[in-house]
Amino acid sequence: MANSLKEFDLLHAIYSANPALPTNITIPPGDDMGELTLTGGSRVLVTVDQLAEGRHFVLKNTPLSLIARKAITRNLSDVAAMAAKPLGCVCAAALPRSFSLDNAKKLSQHLREAALAFDCPMFGGDVTVWDYPILLSVTIIAEPWLGIRPIQRSGAQPGELVCVTGTLGGSIISHNNYTHHLEFTPRVSLAKTLATRYKPTSMIDLSDGLGRDAGHIADQSGVNITLYANKLPCSTAAHIASQASGKTPWMHALSDGEDYELCFTIPFDQSEKLAKENWTVDDVRITPVGFVSQRFPGKPPVQLITPDAKTIDASNFGWEHI
Amino acid sequence: MANSLKEFDLLHAIYSANPALPTNITIPPGDDMGELTLTGGSRVLVTVDQLAEGRHFVLKNTPLSLIARKAITRNLSDVAAMAAKPLGCVCAAALPRSFSLDNAKKLSQHLREAALAFDCPMFGGDVTVWDYPILLSVTIIAEPWLGIRPIQRSGAQPGELVCVTGTLGGSIISHNNYTHHLEFTPRVSLAKTLATRYKPTSMIDLSDGLGRDAGHIADQSGVNITLYANKLPCSTAAHIASQASGKTPWMHALSDGEDYELCFTIPFDQSEKLAKENWTVDDVRITPVGFVSQRFPGKPPVQLITPDAKTIDASNFGWEHI
Repeated sequence: MANSLKEFDLLHAIYSANPALPTNITIPPGDDMGELTLTGGSRVLVTVDQLAEGRHFVLKNTPLSLIARKAITRNLSDVAAMAAKPLGCVCAAALPRSFSLDNAKKLSQHLREAALAFDCPMFGGDVTVWDYPILLSVTIIAEPWLGIRPIQRSGAQPGELVCVTGTLGGSIISHNNYTHHLEFTPRVSLAKTLATRYKPTSMIDLSDGLGRDAGHIADQSGVNITLYANKLPCSTAAHIASQASGKTPWMHALSDGEDYELCFTIPFDQSEKLAKENWTVDDVRITPVGFVSQRFPGKPPVQLITPDAKTIDASNFGWEHI
Repeated sequence: MANSLKEFDLLHAIYSANPALPTNITIPPGDDMGELTLTGGSRVLVTVDQLAEGRHFVLKNTPLSLIARKAITRNLSDVAAMAAKPLGCVCAAALPRSFSLDNAKKLSQHLREAALAFDCPMFGGDVTVWDYPILLSVTIIAEPWLGIRPIQRSGAQPGELVCVTGTLGGSIISHNNYTHHLEFTPRVSLAKTLATRYKPTSMIDLSDGLGRDAGHIADQSGVNITLYANKLPCSTAAHIASQASGKTPWMHALSDGEDYELCFTIPFDQSEKLAKENWTVDDVRITPVGFVSQRFPGKPPVQLITPDAKTIDASNFGWEHI
């Protein structure tokens, strides 16, 4: 539809129209978290994210405990993307009138438990009852780890390597009693180790799909990114998904979204250190999947070299959350 | 309905089931804002509130600028209630697919402008598009003003006076081109002056109605509160509302809600200082409306003495947001 609402259009319009912000806003909108500086000089990072029934989970198929877990963990994935330390969260819930009081109490209990389990205690909230589906909005407050500046999307430099953590694709597939998009563990601790040892120059969490998310790094850093299809670490679920879809596993790894892994860029000297560690950090596999080059006007922000050596525009390979 | 969802039941269940929170949570859920302490010792206050289409505003009757304004100001009223200093905010918006991109941009622009106008710049957000009404969830980050501890609901002591700022009642009535619930100015600056000069022992903002909100102070402080109907400062709108409703103006002042004024308790020596200032602070009228007494088991938390000297239970006089 000519005039229908697409989130990416809208976010783009919002960020591009961003007015001059006061100097206490030290990281403006457009990153995984915003940052403000308190009067005394301490810095606080904040992210907000929504989990909508029918969009991000199907109520009748999903235990309340996993809905609550995902509401907390997908925000913590933003905290990981900045290599920050979560401190606490608040949750706003809009609940349908038809939801029972018992279920509402259970959902609230699961939210509190999930938040505590990930060292991000819930310390405030708001409840609205209405006649529409469940909408959970979680805001997380974080701070920089001692001595570590938050890693933004804007620091990638030509000549650097693009790496991802873990494996990608098929996150909504259930296999071996595990469904990644509901049960993943956010990479908060891994991000701290990466930031301490390997100094990533830019980082983002993979929620929209690698093509699109690498595009955010490329756009914010003013660079181009080239990915190699045959380097992408495809998950078992990506292989399973590919049997049903007829698409290749790397297509799933590139575009499925909701991986909640990290994508980051590092200078080559840091990548040599990673190679010496067998590309393993905190027992998690790190995979170099491409490289950063100078911005070339007219060239797509993210290109992908296919296994048969074709170059395609990968900037829009991702999950449009609509 | 036996099992339907009521917000107050639910919030009560949530607060009473609150598990032991880590020590960095220095004000737990149950106040107008929660507070956490950063590693370096600085304190941060956070509140989240939702504005739902059909519940808190009617889309076709309300300019987008006033919807945006209210989403920001009703949260700032919570900041005022703690006598804290707003620093910035983030907003999560769920928008109907039928909403035009143009309207979405306008709403976002109005949100940013309202936030900036009240010294609380928006520095992050999330947008979801779905097939249901507009839901705006705003989270505000604040800090204590230098030398002022946040004022909680729990500090009221027997023998103290109960006061309110401004006038109460009829906040949804439009008259003289003014509709209070959409156009009020949150009492952030007045709260700072009150806290500096008169040391309120407890404070809350009046969103649910004086009866109910005074009940929150009574419950959290473990005291009883007695209000006098003929002391309540009834607004012009309360008088107008009373002509249509057949209720007395003081009934409107007691129970209409959405006044976004402050209700606070002070020791008598402070009230003498207020009397010397003609009960006026920063050009705003302060009205003593009752007193605090010891908790008496079985007695309603808030009682009101009517003009004909009857005593009634006022604890549940307020607006159930359903």
